[in-house]
Amino acid sequence: MTRFAAAIRAEAEAAWALMEAIGDATREGPGITRAAFGEGEQKAARAVTAWLEERGLPAAADPYGNLHVRWPGQDPSLPAVGAGSHLDSVPQGGNYDGLAGTVAALAVLAAAKASGTRPRRGLHAIAMRGEESPWFATAYLGARLMLGRSTLAEIGGLRRFDSGRTLREHMVALDLPGAEGAVLGPKDLACFFELHIEQGPLLEGAGLPLGIATGIRGNLRFPEARILGEYGHASAVPRAHRRDAVIALSELVLEFDRFWEGRLAKGDDNFVFTIGIVGTDPAQHAMTKVPGEVRFSFNCGGTDATVIAAARELLLRTIAGIEARRGVRFELGPEAGTPPVALDAGLMAKLEASAARLGHGTRRLPTVGHDTAMYCLSGIPGAMLMVRNQHGSHNPQEAMEKADFIAGAETLAYAMLEAAG
Amino acid sequence: MTRFAAAIRAEAEAAWALMEAIGDATREGPGITRAAFGEGEQKAARAVTAWLEERGLPAAADPYGNLHVRWPGQDPSLPAVGAGSHLDSVPQGGNYDGLAGTVAALAVLAAAKASGTRPRRGLHAIAMRGEESPWFATAYLGARLMLGRSTLAEIGGLRRFDSGRTLREHMVALDLPGAEGAVLGPKDLACFFELHIEQGPLLEGAGLPLGIATGIRGNLRFPEARILGEYGHASAVPRAHRRDAVIALSELVLEFDRFWEGRLAKGDDNFVFTIGIVGTDPAQHAMTKVPGEVRFSFNCGGTDATVIAAARELLLRTIAGIEARRGVRFELGPEAGTPPVALDAGLMAKLEASAARLGHGTRRLPTVGHDTAMYCLSGIPGAMLMVRNQHGSHNPQEAMEKADFIAGAETLAYAMLEAAG
Repeated sequence: MTRFAAAIRAEAEAAWALMEAIGDATREGPGITRAAFGEGEQKAARAVTAWLEERGLPAAADPYGNLHVRWPGQDPSLPAVGAGSHLDSVPQGGNYDGLAGTVAALAVLAAAKASGTRPRRGLHAIAMRGEESPWFATAYLGARLMLGRSTLAEIGGLRRFDSGRTLREHMVALDLPGAEGAVLGPKDLACFFELHIEQGPLLEGAGLPLGIATGIRGNLRFPEARILGEYGHASAVPRAHRRDAVIALSELVLEFDRFWEGRLAKGDDNFVFTIGIVGTDPAQHAMTKVPGEVRFSFNCGGTDATVIAAARELLLRTIAGIEARRGVRFELGPEAGTPPVALDAGLMAKLEASAARLGHGTRRLPTVGHDTAMYCLSGIPGAMLMVRNQHGSHNPQEAMEKADFIAGAETLAYAMLEAAG
Repeated sequence: MTRFAAAIRAEAEAAWALMEAIGDATREGPGITRAAFGEGEQKAARAVTAWLEERGLPAAADPYGNLHVRWPGQDPSLPAVGAGSHLDSVPQGGNYDGLAGTVAALAVLAAAKASGTRPRRGLHAIAMRGEESPWFATAYLGARLMLGRSTLAEIGGLRRFDSGRTLREHMVALDLPGAEGAVLGPKDLACFFELHIEQGPLLEGAGLPLGIATGIRGNLRFPEARILGEYGHASAVPRAHRRDAVIALSELVLEFDRFWEGRLAKGDDNFVFTIGIVGTDPAQHAMTKVPGEVRFSFNCGGTDATVIAAARELLLRTIAGIEARRGVRFELGPEAGTPPVALDAGLMAKLEASAARLGHGTRRLPTVGHDTAMYCLSGIPGAMLMVRNQHGSHNPQEAMEKADFIAGAETLAYAMLEAAG
């Protein structure tokens, strides 16, 4: 075993312990709550900083609060190889979503230092803030600001759903000065790797510890759609006279479920569809009234632009048909989708080769929105290493085996070293 | 024109004016609100009492607050011919649902007095309280108590949704003493007629002013049903692993819509189906989460027991199929249906003959729950005369032509006289 191999094994173990300690410190009730730009995230940032200090690796916050730690390479003029993930969790989420990729990146730098491994390019680990969208209704806040995808002038006024305070106010409370725009870019980073729990059951089902993401799904989203029909007496209005919003919604739901089923039948798993929020109006609805309105969220996604375009076409066609048949009117409201993001084929191959060298089986699979998307859109090629986990994510039951995490951290380490030359 | 014919025409005109005045006095915002055992209903009761007093017809409240007025017949030993409807409205409803049948019955008695018409049986008009179910989550409260279908011990503790106070407390506030059980029965009434706006568009569509109800629909109702699935990441959980409560509900909705469509295709309009309330859990749902739960109301109805039984069988079979396919679990919760109520064929014929004599076309049509159901279930044969109206009911746009109301009041009058001998 090389010195680096021994070091990354030891530091991955230590990173696991750090992660468990942060989990214990940020558990509230059954789940983990690390509020974006808030208390739990700040606890995690302090624990990470202390863990790095013990190893002689100083962490520094950028003006938006993301933590950075660098291990210089032999050629300081070259952009570094980046890795990392986020510190925050959803409210009542699990411990590993975000934090696993953060501490795995720290372990790689710690192992490089401990073993005196100094590749040509530097290594650069980043712990990001505010990736989860529930807090400010917008995802990737830390990465978004740091990479200049949005400015504080644009998004500083977003309010956190629980505190009612703005992002800017939360930043002031954390003594974060903010800045005018990007503080990181392609001149700093040659590429970016993110380790992340899978959040789905495919790896578990396939008996594989690791997966390589093929792309980050884009979305066609309408968070506040509604259907307007007409309220009426549930027993007195004949079927032909009804303008029933709930029946109209049911037709839309099943049309998209069939579309999804049809794609899967053709071997294409590049689509997802969810109506996560549905509600008739409590001020007007009744068991004995034909529902004259229903509000709902529409959310479908795919890893390539073709399927998003097909879904949009299907949505408009289906709505037109339902409106004609059912006498209702759809109001989709503001659109909130993001385009799909391509990941870098060369980096994917490096992750695969690294896993193979360690004897870990992998499969390719699509993934969902992550900080890495912000890097890719900023001209920094990215790739994602997915780690087998149980019970999904964004819930207190989220789980991951320690051995799978260590396999992931080691795989990440060798891919980073390979990329760093 | 006979003296009675002139009198009923005049009193029907006066009853219309009374109804409009009560509407003006109980308008709140765009709609009419006459709360059961509350302010608006009480205003209507006082206006009705004053109108009758002007005509020398004293109204008396029974212990539950329903108003009674009698015009004695030649043979006081015979049960009288009853008619009436209710004084209350739904919150933000229209003016005619209930009130039209109430004032029409008063007009018949007023015309009998004004014209000195004294049939063999007496005439008995009743203005009932608390028919609309939104107030106390139970329908026909006044009729139910008066006829002994429920006792105050059983339902006095029901709370009004807006005040939070119990039915018993509202009765005390109105100085209503209550009683132990029934205060009216088959020994008092030989039969009961109720005029009511149609609440549906069939008469309007057919160009007919009046309809004869064939039966009062029964219901299969589950006010608080829910489907339990599993929350999950909307983009990460593959279709085969989802337990999506909203997709499951959509399947149930469309299965019943198809059942209804199929019956109509066979010429059977004896069924209605409505999912009026639907909602995912605001504390747990998100656009980006597979919905793990949805609550809904289930409500279907028909005028004969066969269709109710068929719907129940379909419900259970559909649920079993969806549960097996979708990995969800249905919890129907408490059942709140009522059996269908047969109306009296002889009384229906009397209404038809009366309308024909006046030159009004009629058609037969099913109707929904009304106070008349309580009479029928108490051994007092009943029939219902439906009056053409526009824009349904239970909404501020509810409308009725004055000429149609007068046609209905006259038709009711001659049918009552015919039944009174």
